[in-house]
Amino acid sequence: MIIVLKEKVTENIARLQQLFADRKQVFVHKNRVALLAVEPSEIPADIRAAASEIITKTPAAVQASRLFHPEDTVIKTAHSVIGAGGLTLMAGPCSVESRAHILKMAAVAKKGGATVLRGGAFKPRTSPYSFQGLEEEGLQYLREAADQNGMDVITEVMDDEHVELVAKYTDIFQIGARNMQNFSLLKAVGKAQIPVALKRGMSATLDDLLNASEYIAAGGNQQIMLVERGIRTFANKYTRNTFDAAAIPVLQQLTHYPVIADPSHAVGHWDLVTPLAVTGVAAGAAGLLVEIHDDPEHALSDGPQALKPGKYLTMAQHAKEVHQVLAAWK
Amino acid sequence: MIIVLKEKVTENIARLQQLFADRKQVFVHKNRVALLAVEPSEIPADIRAAASEIITKTPAAVQASRLFHPEDTVIKTAHSVIGAGGLTLMAGPCSVESRAHILKMAAVAKKGGATVLRGGAFKPRTSPYSFQGLEEEGLQYLREAADQNGMDVITEVMDDEHVELVAKYTDIFQIGARNMQNFSLLKAVGKAQIPVALKRGMSATLDDLLNASEYIAAGGNQQIMLVERGIRTFANKYTRNTFDAAAIPVLQQLTHYPVIADPSHAVGHWDLVTPLAVTGVAAGAAGLLVEIHDDPEHALSDGPQALKPGKYLTMAQHAKEVHQVLAAWK
Amino acid sequence: MIIVLKEKVTENIARLQQLFADRKQVFVHKNRVALLAVEPSEIPADIRAAASEIITKTPAAVQASRLFHPEDTVIKTAHSVIGAGGLTLMAGPCSVESRAHILKMAAVAKKGGATVLRGGAFKPRTSPYSFQGLEEEGLQYLREAADQNGMDVITEVMDDEHVELVAKYTDIFQIGARNMQNFSLLKAVGKAQIPVALKRGMSATLDDLLNASEYIAAGGNQQIMLVERGIRTFANKYTRNTFDAAAIPVLQQLTHYPVIADPSHAVGHWDLVTPLAVTGVAAGAAGLLVEIHDDPEHALSDGPQALKPGKYLTMAQHAKEVHQVLAAWK
Amino acid sequence: MIIVLKEKVTENIARLQQLFADRKQVFVHKNRVALLAVEPSEIPADIRAAASEIITKTPAAVQASRLFHPEDTVIKTAHSVIGAGGLTLMAGPCSVESRAHILKMAAVAKKGGATVLRGGAFKPRTSPYSFQGLEEEGLQYLREAADQNGMDVITEVMDDEHVELVAKYTDIFQIGARNMQNFSLLKAVGKAQIPVALKRGMSATLDDLLNASEYIAAGGNQQIMLVERGIRTFANKYTRNTFDAAAIPVLQQLTHYPVIADPSHAVGHWDLVTPLAVTGVAAGAAGLLVEIHDDPEHALSDGPQALKPGKYLTMAQHAKEVHQVLAAWK
Repeated sequence: MIIVLKEKVTENIARLQQLFADRKQVFVHKNRVALLAVEPSEIPADIRAAASEIITKTPAAVQASRLFHPEDTVIKTAHSVIGAGGLTLMAGPCSVESRAHILKMAAVAKKGGATVLRGGAFKPRTSPYSFQGLEEEGLQYLREAADQNGMDVITEVMDDEHVELVAKYTDIFQIGARNMQNFSLLKAVGKAQIPVALKRGMSATLDDLLNASEYIAAGGNQQIMLVERGIRTFANKYTRNTFDAAAIPVLQQLTHYPVIADPSHAVGHWDLVTPLAVTGVAAGAAGLLVEIHDDPEHALSDGPQALKPGKYLTMAQHAKEVHQVLAAWK
Repeated sequence: MIIVLKEKVTENIARLQQLFADRKQVFVHKNRVALLAVEPSEIPADIRAAASEIITKTPAAVQASRLFHPEDTVIKTAHSVIGAGGLTLMAGPCSVESRAHILKMAAVAKKGGATVLRGGAFKPRTSPYSFQGLEEEGLQYLREAADQNGMDVITEVMDDEHVELVAKYTDIFQIGARNMQNFSLLKAVGKAQIPVALKRGMSATLDDLLNASEYIAAGGNQQIMLVERGIRTFANKYTRNTFDAAAIPVLQQLTHYPVIADPSHAVGHWDLVTPLAVTGVAAGAAGLLVEIHDDPEHALSDGPQALKPGKYLTMAQHAKEVHQVLAAWK
Repeated sequence: MIIVLKEKVTENIARLQQLFADRKQVFVHKNRVALLAVEPSEIPADIRAAASEIITKTPAAVQASRLFHPEDTVIKTAHSVIGAGGLTLMAGPCSVESRAHILKMAAVAKKGGATVLRGGAFKPRTSPYSFQGLEEEGLQYLREAADQNGMDVITEVMDDEHVELVAKYTDIFQIGARNMQNFSLLKAVGKAQIPVALKRGMSATLDDLLNASEYIAAGGNQQIMLVERGIRTFANKYTRNTFDAAAIPVLQQLTHYPVIADPSHAVGHWDLVTPLAVTGVAAGAAGLLVEIHDDPEHALSDGPQALKPGKYLTMAQHAKEVHQVLAAWK
Repeated sequence: MIIVLKEKVTENIARLQQLFADRKQVFVHKNRVALLAVEPSEIPADIRAAASEIITKTPAAVQASRLFHPEDTVIKTAHSVIGAGGLTLMAGPCSVESRAHILKMAAVAKKGGATVLRGGAFKPRTSPYSFQGLEEEGLQYLREAADQNGMDVITEVMDDEHVELVAKYTDIFQIGARNMQNFSLLKAVGKAQIPVALKRGMSATLDDLLNASEYIAAGGNQQIMLVERGIRTFANKYTRNTFDAAAIPVLQQLTHYPVIADPSHAVGHWDLVTPLAVTGVAAGAAGLLVEIHDDPEHALSDGPQALKPGKYLTMAQHAKEVHQVLAAWK
């Protein structure tokens, strides 16, 4: 249940908090109070009278819901503002491969307008015998490369034990698709004060994704962005996954968190990344997460889907042009 | 196998046709000859010498392939040019409901810039007890409404027996998703001289779609456009189907036929049609097929996904603006 | 709405039929009357009083529903009884390839206990350039081979124009997965007096399948069996489709029509056919539809999924043993 | 590459190990040596001569492969032998709810022939606000209930930090579907000396599943069983997931690890659990993992899919009868 108060807001919120102090889920946002374990009949008559609306049908992921939090969440980092109507570009190689390489790639990313540098130091690889990342050394190089270029860092954290370590280097945690329902990890980043980019699992419904985000929010961290990166379907010959473009406007209706499009993982082939990046922007994405590499044939991971620098600059230009058209409609 | 001739083109094509006159699949396009049931070793040495390239790995749907037909197919009807770089708008109600209604809807469609009027007279409904269409009467109204507004007609033909009847009224045959592999129907429209819009089946791979188109081409009709209208996946709560945006650029790589996006059937809810229409254009669609209705609550079919006139005009405007940005990149 | 009468059955049915003679969907089965286009308030009070139950929430495919027709449908042909608790074996090659071949295969099928001979004379092939079947000549051979062995014939009919022709030779019409929603074809076999085996489409939900069956029933033909043959999912590397074993007990709950399992098309590889056939029986299938071939490498269609005679006899034996175990539980 | 030695086995294995001591993946099983990072040309000629076969095309999950380990893996715990041709029954409630309840359920499980008691103490719930398990207290009750009945324990471990704790109480670790690619967790259980039941992720291909198992094997723990529990498809109205019965015989071909069927999660409704359990056995499962509850309406989790005691006893009886039929074929 969500009570939307029209008057005596401060007073009534205090009373509701006091009344239901023994219940577990009591959330307050401005003039709205969400009470998950409370029956409507338990609300005092005068508080009912002070409410403009009592929403009884609320989703489980209540903090993620626009019913509870109607305004867009805007996430501000040192160099980026995500979700305020602009287009945030996040780019970089799949893996941090070496100090020299990430420095080079950061300069390219920056040139295309990216304000966030991506790069994996802990890599979730399908096979245990594949390259698993440079770990802390990789994080150091990534931080250095971002700092040199006046950029933020986004990098994946793969388990709760590494949250503290990764937090020393990153501006945004990335939770990978395979870990979308790694609830221990979600709880751990929920306790951190660093924004989280939560990737949709390959077979996750949008409700699953929002419920996963609620694990983070329940820990106290509402600096969340959601990433559409393609789902697993029968259509897996020409594209690695199926980019679910409609998920972006649907999520924008359901939740206040910004939605980022990851065309690289969605399609898995560099020559489809630019049309899909543009498609993601057209669907209303607040940002793009794109893999770049100057020598994809020799990349340590995911080479086939990386854009070479020249292609990346074109992609960035095209994405911005389409974004400008959409921005003018608002 | 496709032989790409660089010299003595006319002469060598004539020889190849004569040599393999007893084989079934011999196709010629400009300087290219496709020979499906022929071994490379059967090609005379001097013809090999006259070839710039012999492509041995050819897809089953060879006439659909860009390897055989590198240039874009452009389809011209009385009022539309489809596939030449413009954006063709096809709009109208799901069903022809009455003469008055289709006349009214045609005027709306026209106002938004549509050059093709859609409307179903034979309706493939999930239940046999649902409205099945006005049949020939509906075709007459549809033709009249298009003519009054200087538009083309697109309408669905559901079985081979009706091809002749529908041909009297329509400018473009529509083959529905459920009939994508109704091979008798495909063969029948393959013998007609009227363009065909072939909708992708709900579980059709892109190869399935191209092979289905080949049934039409094999009959002699190469005036084909392909329609992406969403596929069936687990993500079916908030959208009726999953719009496979990446299918559009992939198809554009594989085939020379123009690709049309149908956002209405892909999402199934009017409030998602506009973002998905824009998304389809951003993915590179040559046209849009959109359902409109002035009173969706009382529509005889598919009301929930129909745009009201005002929303339709906005959608059309937005689609054109995004299309202009893409057009400038070429 | 379904009215279940406990008394004055004949009299009240007659009155209901008279009362709603102007409505379209009025169906009677024993003491049950289904009225699709009637409001509960339109039922006279005394008929309400004579009813033991009024079921207001009825599925669109009402004739297929157990709510309307609680007892199992049993289909009897010259040599088979389908749906009465036994296990009906239907076997034969994918295509009728020649007179000699189908005669040989029929003897094998019979030896394994099959009472129905399968074989395609009209083949729905993905590519127009693949073998399309022997057509009427194939039907003649198939009939002869079945008759020589005291068997029934099942064969696919691909369009409404061929229904009359195929009816001259077959005991059971097969509607292929690609044609499950070819409504013209469904209506045509609905008017015939020959049992129909309706295959589930690759992306058909169980409701879609039941609604498709309703097109046949609405025409007057209730001799319907449903065939589970695998659905299209992401799991398409080791098996052609995903056999949906649970569909069998679910369908048995929803409908009175017998359900047949087709393991050959579900898996697409002969070495998985036997375990899947046994699985289908364990799930409660009333019969099996299996492809056999003595020389699969040279089969004109679907060779990889055909069982050789020896493997087929083992499969048949195993299926019967598992069926006996299940039969003893009832 | 896998080298299958026919002679001088001990000597040649020692030489290969010495030769490639600097490489990362060198695995030995009896007379087979798998060398992942070695080129065929690096193998000395005399070792080649001593080999009966050199398999160059090896899957990434080489230790899981039958090419490397042809014989079935048999897992022995105090009370169970899994994978030796018998049928191992694992039953219990979804969650450990209280000491009294798990004691009662253990007795029921035992009565049906289960040798392994299941019960969750750490619960991966879709919503953070749902019951999350009794944690260590639950593990204590579960251990006590199993010991009282002479049974083994299987219980889920959700993150690497809990591996040590859970190891104190369990005989088999369960890795849930959502954690199938939680690589930190897989590495952690790979270092333990306790068997692991790895559940297939909802969108995991069989290769994904085998690669996930390889993370465990790579740590030194080859006591692995794989669990088919249904995949996510469009067919999600009548069943929670789609039970992929064919996965069982396919996995048996690819790997030596035993495969367990979990019909409860596959279907999600108790009235389908028994037919699906029987189906899983018919497909060749080495065991069943089934949820039971005496009062499903009030279960703290997954009540709808729990079998009541009487239904469970019938299911167990049916499963054993079908298993006996299959066992006789070997």
